[in-house]
Amino acid sequence: MIARFEDAYVHVNASVGEGTEIGICTIVDDTAVIGKYCKIGNFCHIRPGVRILDGADIRDYCYIAQNAVIGERVKIFQYSNIGMGTLIQKDVYIGAKVMITNTNRIAYGRDFEPEITPCVIMRGARIASGAKLKPGVVIGGNALVGMGALVTKDVPACAIVMGVPAKVTGTVPQEERV
Amino acid sequence: MIARFEDAYVHVNASVGEGTEIGICTIVDDTAVIGKYCKIGNFCHIRPGVRILDGADIRDYCYIAQNAVIGERVKIFQYSNIGMGTLIQKDVYIGAKVMITNTNRIAYGRDFEPEITPCVIMRGARIASGAKLKPGVVIGGNALVGMGALVTKDVPACAIVMGVPAKVTGTVPQEERV
Amino acid sequence: MIARFEDAYVHVNASVGEGTEIGICTIVDDTAVIGKYCKIGNFCHIRPGVRILDGADIRDYCYIAQNAVIGERVKIFQYSNIGMGTLIQKDVYIGAKVMITNTNRIAYGRDFEPEITPCVIMRGARIASGAKLKPGVVIGGNALVGMGALVTKDVPACAIVMGVPAKVTGTVPQEERV
Repeated sequence: MIARFEDAYVHVNASVGEGTEIGICTIVDDTAVIGKYCKIGNFCHIRPGVRILDGADIRDYCYIAQNAVIGERVKIFQYSNIGMGTLIQKDVYIGAKVMITNTNRIAYGRDFEPEITPCVIMRGARIASGAKLKPGVVIGGNALVGMGALVTKDVPACAIVMGVPAKVTGTVPQEERV
Repeated sequence: MIARFEDAYVHVNASVGEGTEIGICTIVDDTAVIGKYCKIGNFCHIRPGVRILDGADIRDYCYIAQNAVIGERVKIFQYSNIGMGTLIQKDVYIGAKVMITNTNRIAYGRDFEPEITPCVIMRGARIASGAKLKPGVVIGGNALVGMGALVTKDVPACAIVMGVPAKVTGTVPQEERV
Repeated sequence: MIARFEDAYVHVNASVGEGTEIGICTIVDDTAVIGKYCKIGNFCHIRPGVRILDGADIRDYCYIAQNAVIGERVKIFQYSNIGMGTLIQKDVYIGAKVMITNTNRIAYGRDFEPEITPCVIMRGARIASGAKLKPGVVIGGNALVGMGALVTKDVPACAIVMGVPAKVTGTVPQEERV
């Protein structure tokens, strides 16, 4: 652990860029790489192999699992769970209590391998609070996932989806795209 | 930070009333005001400008966002997220993993202002575990919101609502009102 | 608090078995009993009277309420809430953000007793991420509860259930039973 972040637990083999702030009690594991001018909230856990790019803003109680990649300026609100290997492109917004999963078939104690299929969220997509993404789904660029939606299949670019399971209900207007 | 709460992080400009207990690792920010004889659990984060009135009981991992007002004797269970500016009247019960939101239109990176419309929960309402409230909804006095419900519009006083999205399914009996 | 787990808060009257690891900031209360070779993650709270049997693996931010029993080799992922008195048999898998409740009728401030009816989860069941269990439901052995399901009544052994509210959609194949 290094002394630079007084109330956080940052592993000596983690890398933290200039101007980045790390909150109270947050744990940054071995080999995690955090870019410049990021904000990492309190009570977060950043797992090994995670890469967080410049300007990302991650709020309290977020769990970023192994090898996830968080793009530039991505914003993730409190209690969100980002599964192993998730790829989040830049300018994505993720609300509070979002769950991004990665294991399609629960092998626990069984005689087969788990299927790990990470999700991909493309540039400028917005995922509202409490949404859940099934393993392996791809959220297209600028798509909008509604509050509490359960996303069970890929979402096209610029689509609006809502519900349990999520269905396409509209298109993101031109002026709300980045 | 002050020394009175040994394992908590209480800002010197926060105010904490007599007889109030604050749990391990909990963070109380600048200008937050907590009344008398409250219990604040572990791993909570009480943000600036929050007011928590006397006798409130807030359990572990709760996040109370800026300027929320928590009334007297309100009980909030673990992992609940109380959005910015939420107004919760006295004698309200909020279960675990409840999400109260405040941002109606996600502006992130776009060229418009976010719409912040706080929720209001009136006296004696009960919100069961895992319920989600859309921004700006008003929950009437003594209303009951069912487990996991997604509340998308105002709930009348004494109504029982359930489902995704929530619909009125009954009325709270007289003897269950406060 | 004892010194063996440097960054955890383990009560002197808690019991922790040989080879068990306890994560950063985790709180283990008075009279909790944790077996051998368990892993308890970071930011967990293990309440009084809880019993966790040998080889259990509990991840970050889990809240295990009073008197719950967690069987051998049970795996519980992050942010899961295990209600008071829940009984989880061995070899059960519980995903992230699962909510297991225990209070059927919210008495708060009312003139009746709350009904506390703990859930039971039988051997080899798998509960996917984000599922919610109503108080008192029994999940049969080797049953599979789908992601985000709301379980409102008992689930037979080896059944697959999904949806809000959860309905039986199939049977767990022989080779996926333990």
